Amino acid sequence: MSENGNAISTLLEELGKLPGIGPKTAERIAHFLLVGDRTVASTLADSLRAVVERVHPCRECHHLCEGERCEICSDRRRDAGMICVVETTRDVGLFERSGNYRGVYHVLGGRLAPLDNIGPEKLTLTDLLQRVWKGGVREVILATSPTLEGDGTALLVSTFLAGTGVQITRLARGVPSGASLELINFQILSDALDARKAY
Amino acid sequence: MSENGNAISTLLEELGKLPGIGPKTAERIAHFLLVGDRTVASTLADSLRAVVERVHPCRECHHLCEGERCEICSDRRRDAGMICVVETTRDVGLFERSGNYRGVYHVLGGRLAPLDNIGPEKLTLTDLLQRVWKGGVREVILATSPTLEGDGTALLVSTFLAGTGVQITRLARGVPSGASLELINFQILSDALDARKAY
Repeated sequence: MSENGNAISTLLEELGKLPGIGPKTAERIAHFLLVGDRTVASTLADSLRAVVERVHPCRECHHLCEGERCEICSDRRRDAGMICVVETTRDVGLFERSGNYRGVYHVLGGRLAPLDNIGPEKLTLTDLLQRVWKGGVREVILATSPTLEGDGTALLVSTFLAGTGVQITRLARGVPSGASLELINFQILSDALDARKAY
Repeated sequence: MSENGNAISTLLEELGKLPGIGPKTAERIAHFLLVGDRTVASTLADSLRAVVERVHPCRECHHLCEGERCEICSDRRRDAGMICVVETTRDVGLFERSGNYRGVYHVLGGRLAPLDNIGPEKLTLTDLLQRVWKGGVREVILATSPTLEGDGTALLVSTFLAGTGVQITRLARGVPSGASLELINFQILSDALDARKAY
């Protein structure tokens, strides 16, 4: 549709910037937005405006929220003595959906990636340290990804917290529930063997 | 992220309405828009607003454009005596990119689909008939999809144009260039055999 007008080609260009959206999908979406009910495009524009204006990082844990503090940090039923340290705000959603965690979070805002120029100064490490110093924190769970960079980040966080006396734990490593062993690589099996438990 | 605020969950809901975007992709996009550079979200909102306000069907061929008539219909170098009848405004883009067509288009706005309640009255058939009646049209190429519904639509258009004396043609049916014959179904091979040409 790029041959007919600036507005459409600008939209295609903007849609193409989104992750996972190539030129074909962008065109499909643009077509969907233009043909038929235009209210979808309008409400999408409104909701984009709304998030840009209203959504900010939580003062406490850096999770995204609309107020000063996120719903999790404001929830008195949550255990503020247990901080789950995650890389991104998306990870909070994943843990929340697992339904198994009643503590609070701390969003680092990424993982250590020297090749991408992401060093310790880009992460919210000092804020985490301040939260621990303030007292009342018993345990910090390192829930960065089980990858080389995630492990590096976990190591960095643990170094930062050394000397605060807080208990530091890391997510368990093993075979993923429901997976077929054939499809699992040696590293995972080796981790699972190392961490085996009495049955 | 749905646990933290209305603005984000509204955005997720709106993104989820787009074709090809499930809950996971919606979340990935929302995360991308919220973390880091917020200008992407703002410009996307602006461009959505712009298309809603400025993009309308061409008075002549129903292709989407910003003015009264689309760039193709306004282009004097295009052969207005040859009309390629396509289902949607997206198809125009496909033919334009093939770079092989110098005539004009007519966008039907869909294909005949009785099961989805799309009858002849939903298509721009009378506008096409008027264009042919106005004179100067030598050929109408039926470029609806090579499917049952596309064929039905082509038949309908040809019935509509019967008696106007215009030459009616249909896209060739055969094996797609570059494809491996093993992956091609019997219907395609049978079409290609029926339409075989002297070598």
